[in-house]
Amino acid sequence: MSKKPEILVLSGGVGGAKFADGMYQVLPPDSLTVCVNTGDDFEAFGLAISPDLDTVCYTLAGIANPKTGWGLHGETYHTLEAIGRLEGPTWFKLGDMDLATHLERTRLLREGMPLSKITSRFCENWGIHARVVPMTNQPVRTLVRTHSGIIPFQEYFVKLNCEPVVEGFIFSGIENAEPSEELLSSIDQADFIVIGPSNPLVSIDPILSLSDVSERISHKNVIAISPIVGGRAIKGPLAKMYGELGIETRARSVASHYRGLIDAFVLDSLDSEEAEDIRRWDIITLVTDTIMKTRLDRAHLAGEILDFIRREFSG
Amino acid sequence: MSKKPEILVLSGGVGGAKFADGMYQVLPPDSLTVCVNTGDDFEAFGLAISPDLDTVCYTLAGIANPKTGWGLHGETYHTLEAIGRLEGPTWFKLGDMDLATHLERTRLLREGMPLSKITSRFCENWGIHARVVPMTNQPVRTLVRTHSGIIPFQEYFVKLNCEPVVEGFIFSGIENAEPSEELLSSIDQADFIVIGPSNPLVSIDPILSLSDVSERISHKNVIAISPIVGGRAIKGPLAKMYGELGIETRARSVASHYRGLIDAFVLDSLDSEEAEDIRRWDIITLVTDTIMKTRLDRAHLAGEILDFIRREFSG
Repeated sequence: MSKKPEILVLSGGVGGAKFADGMYQVLPPDSLTVCVNTGDDFEAFGLAISPDLDTVCYTLAGIANPKTGWGLHGETYHTLEAIGRLEGPTWFKLGDMDLATHLERTRLLREGMPLSKITSRFCENWGIHARVVPMTNQPVRTLVRTHSGIIPFQEYFVKLNCEPVVEGFIFSGIENAEPSEELLSSIDQADFIVIGPSNPLVSIDPILSLSDVSERISHKNVIAISPIVGGRAIKGPLAKMYGELGIETRARSVASHYRGLIDAFVLDSLDSEEAEDIRRWDIITLVTDTIMKTRLDRAHLAGEILDFIRREFSG
Repeated sequence: MSKKPEILVLSGGVGGAKFADGMYQVLPPDSLTVCVNTGDDFEAFGLAISPDLDTVCYTLAGIANPKTGWGLHGETYHTLEAIGRLEGPTWFKLGDMDLATHLERTRLLREGMPLSKITSRFCENWGIHARVVPMTNQPVRTLVRTHSGIIPFQEYFVKLNCEPVVEGFIFSGIENAEPSEELLSSIDQADFIVIGPSNPLVSIDPILSLSDVSERISHKNVIAISPIVGGRAIKGPLAKMYGELGIETRARSVASHYRGLIDAFVLDSLDSEEAEDIRRWDIITLVTDTIMKTRLDRAHLAGEILDFIRREFSG
């Protein structure tokens, strides 16, 4: 293909953000869009918090905390400590600089600015040249059905440390939420859509559950990257969730999950023996090293996937 | 009088807080209540901010910034700086630790806890043994009528640095606001009510404008302290406001403002020649040094006023 391809990456938090950063490093400016899950969003202290959006933006801006993957590099916690002294809730680790993002987002939302506009404005301030778009401008809230009842996602994820046994998920509000215009136009303009190595159940499914999104995506070339490597989730509770839901913790479970939607699947060299099964579902495969420990790893994986795309989908 | 008197201090921000701290130092625990103006309250970034309440509490807790009189000692501004990088509004100087107060207050208000209950809870956390009570649990917003239009108080005070020329004040919502139960019971139980050296127009008038409050107070022994010393306001825009409203910037203007309500007036030695005029209005006077530069000055003034009270109102 002569012109540089337009790429749309679908992403949750840390894993997807790292991969998006790889694409950001290797693609020319303005040919990358990252669509981010907002099902994890919640309100605390009256503030609108969008954890996945912030993780993606902080990562692309190069200001993320390299140790955790979320939050900000050089962050302080003076406010959180003072909340603790007032005996307020401190389970969500609000950093001082991170708080500014939530405060300003809340202020602009209250002025009537849609989340997608706020996000692009923040990206400009942070010097990000890719488009980062929330999946929707309406509230969608992921709820986790567990043996201990229905629990809002962040409470399950952070406060309860993913301990309750999962039975399923509810994307509350999804039926009334519309995909953001920016997401729809990115899908239309994309040459390739890459589903990042994010949790399919709670990070990608909310995006795919928005009306029209799966249908529109299915007409495109879609590549998914496995977040399961060697029988483990690289990050987050996916392996535990799979176990509790009776799903094998294998890369091919992820491929199976996306069956019918994806044309290609990227899995780790550690799982190469699964590639043959996946290819039987009419899904082509790329087996490579997918673990991203350094910034260079991210760029390397993105470059390999771009080469693979050029090879397999040319003409 | 044999038992220790119950004292109720009416206060705005810095000046009233310093005097309240003086009383706090010299009175036994549990015999001091400070009722604080909430007309300066406002919302920013979705947070409920009560500047005068915070100033009084921080001062009594001994954690206030000694240089400014407001804000916290050892405060940092990491959030505010990050808001600035996002091109958000930074005119209200939100400190990191101070933010915790606003966040936790907002969270508890949203849970349905009244402001008076939140304030007593915070006081407990901060180790304050006096009762600090907001004048009301309902929203009252002081608006400043100026040559440049009607301006919310904090915007006039902080953002515009009191520059617009004042024509008058509106206590928006006062007609629907009820004095807090804690204020009413403090008035009933008080042996003496002291109006601190706060701005009568914007700090004390909101309290006195609540239904029933002036009437109930008028049955008590009431002492007011002049915030005007030597033709100047010790702090804040009172002198400028008086000038713009055609009122003489003299201590006796303050006494005249409270005429009919107060029994006694405390004015600075610098203004001793005004005492005679004031006494003609059936107001007894105490002339003493009222400027509080140190913590000891506060206790000294409070002690002098207590002695004066014992002398003049005994039996």
